[in-house]
Amino acid sequence: MKTKTVLTKMNPYKPGKQIEEVKKEYNLERIVKLASNENPFGFSGEVRSKLPEAIDQLEYYPDGYAREIREELASFYDVDEKQLIFGNGSDEVVQILCRAFLEEGSNTVMATPTFPQYKHNALIEGAEVREVPLTQGGHHDIETMLQTVDEKTRILWLCSPNNPTGVLMDKKTIDRVIEVCPDDVLIVMDEAYYEYADESRRYPSVEAVQNHKNVVVLRTFSKAYGLAGLRIGYGIADEALISAMEPAREPFNTSVIAQKAAVLALQDQSFLHRTVEETKKNKQDFMEFCEEIGIGYDQSEANFVLVHLPISGDDMFEFLLTKGFIVRSGEALGLPNSIRLTIGSEEDMNEIKEYMREKLT
Amino acid sequence: MKTKTVLTKMNPYKPGKQIEEVKKEYNLERIVKLASNENPFGFSGEVRSKLPEAIDQLEYYPDGYAREIREELASFYDVDEKQLIFGNGSDEVVQILCRAFLEEGSNTVMATPTFPQYKHNALIEGAEVREVPLTQGGHHDIETMLQTVDEKTRILWLCSPNNPTGVLMDKKTIDRVIEVCPDDVLIVMDEAYYEYADESRRYPSVEAVQNHKNVVVLRTFSKAYGLAGLRIGYGIADEALISAMEPAREPFNTSVIAQKAAVLALQDQSFLHRTVEETKKNKQDFMEFCEEIGIGYDQSEANFVLVHLPISGDDMFEFLLTKGFIVRSGEALGLPNSIRLTIGSEEDMNEIKEYMREKLT
Repeated sequence: MKTKTVLTKMNPYKPGKQIEEVKKEYNLERIVKLASNENPFGFSGEVRSKLPEAIDQLEYYPDGYAREIREELASFYDVDEKQLIFGNGSDEVVQILCRAFLEEGSNTVMATPTFPQYKHNALIEGAEVREVPLTQGGHHDIETMLQTVDEKTRILWLCSPNNPTGVLMDKKTIDRVIEVCPDDVLIVMDEAYYEYADESRRYPSVEAVQNHKNVVVLRTFSKAYGLAGLRIGYGIADEALISAMEPAREPFNTSVIAQKAAVLALQDQSFLHRTVEETKKNKQDFMEFCEEIGIGYDQSEANFVLVHLPISGDDMFEFLLTKGFIVRSGEALGLPNSIRLTIGSEEDMNEIKEYMREKLT
Repeated sequence: MKTKTVLTKMNPYKPGKQIEEVKKEYNLERIVKLASNENPFGFSGEVRSKLPEAIDQLEYYPDGYAREIREELASFYDVDEKQLIFGNGSDEVVQILCRAFLEEGSNTVMATPTFPQYKHNALIEGAEVREVPLTQGGHHDIETMLQTVDEKTRILWLCSPNNPTGVLMDKKTIDRVIEVCPDDVLIVMDEAYYEYADESRRYPSVEAVQNHKNVVVLRTFSKAYGLAGLRIGYGIADEALISAMEPAREPFNTSVIAQKAAVLALQDQSFLHRTVEETKKNKQDFMEFCEEIGIGYDQSEANFVLVHLPISGDDMFEFLLTKGFIVRSGEALGLPNSIRLTIGSEEDMNEIKEYMREKLT
């Protein structure tokens, strides 16, 4: 059998260590996972109490149009319901975009490091991937990215706040991208961590969608809403753009449970606010801790911090693992002397700070 | 923005009528959906009673390796756990196969009509789609299909029981395909309706996987197990073949709820047996009814029957809709004078038979 040539050079996804495995391996009773930017405060109590009612008529296919959550979100954002597309996580919307717009002979421009699924899916489509290194401090190098765009560029990816740095793009920068980037290049604004960013500094991206036919905004219920296990994210764009993407979406890609949970989660904005406030406070404390012990970090507007270490990220990762904390080593992200650490509960953050102090001082 | 050229010629998926819409439109209190080959007997009581416990820790990403259901299925089929790949429905495994093996310059061979997602996904990958019409009675025309295979063929699709005809391929025919088809052509045996087929006539496809590195078997929890709303299906193949597919799978493509429900459903084989027996009985009754009123049908080993009518399928579809029954008109399937009808409960089948009799006699 002959696969696409590019696939033979790609690594199949290596799943991270599961909590149960780590418990066994290190003989630990309790594991704190701060590796995948999940919500340490769980998810809305409304979802917990009302979702069991949705365990009914599972024998029917889900509504492929996802009408209930579609109407809720259209009203939440004041957009037309046809301006939305749903994915089995927003990473599936990334896949849909690549399947619809990229092919051999085309190229796509993105920062590096950034969310790896842009590159992964673009390669599968046979597109040329043009990666532009972040500047000092973890910012997108917008001028170089814009210069890298040519007549064969189909998609320009902006990840804001960027994963793995947490850095938010400022408004002037995004305005400039939209202004300078040719109208026939799709600008994808991946805002998976949008809800964590300070309101005064967030870009009005839904407004941008209404004024620019080449802008897609991606958001998710996996992060601040705490529903990563259910897989539901979405894209917002001009209606014509959504229509162009639809053939590349599997007809029944979001489950009946995910659709229902998303509705319940969206309706409980108070849970979201508590999550965001608590995260902000714990992140502030953690950044102060970094300064206190003299280690660098990128200015994060997300629920994680990229920490620059005087030792290798793998060393720190292994050390923290023995203490029951799973973080993400920067090695795999192309940032060897760093770790990316999800902001956890106050108690867990206090504990991990002590371990980091022990290792570094 | 420029999409792949092929996408501009493709229709975005048009979702079927939702039950609530039909109720309103026709002012009906009760709707019976016999359009999507769902399980009229619901799903296992074990899933209903134990799945609510899984509504916990939804903030964590699902296990991307799907270890629990993987181990259960590996043991169920006596295969190595690395011989399995999971999809967000088996239609996602179809997508993964196309993403991994098809590209411009390659071709793929399939029957027509058959499950439309083979063609849809192959076109998105830029492959040439070679469709070979079914013979009289709804059988795959294997000799023509084998002659259509050439050095650029990457995948040969066998759908057994075939959708929309319900016809099961016999053992000798499949043996011949495996024998004659070049070893570098992937043979996909889509067995979404496998559990409904008579045990004595089923092909030993898992055995075939163990002896042939170019065979993939697709199965699902959406049909006889009654979990269509949750989206989980899987492929079984040689370990090397599964590894080749893995880069084309999204890392967290099956939800934590779907994985858990599949485990519970698999463990309750008694529900499966009741479903299959009841379906068999009601299908037999329905086929006798067809003979009684003199209409033709294809010999189905699935949970649906393709009925050949003296009137248009759309006519019959519209008529049954006014009575509260949703079936699938053959028009969209390329079989204008037919309907595809899911076998329902005894009571619903008795009712629809009377309406069909009213319309046709």
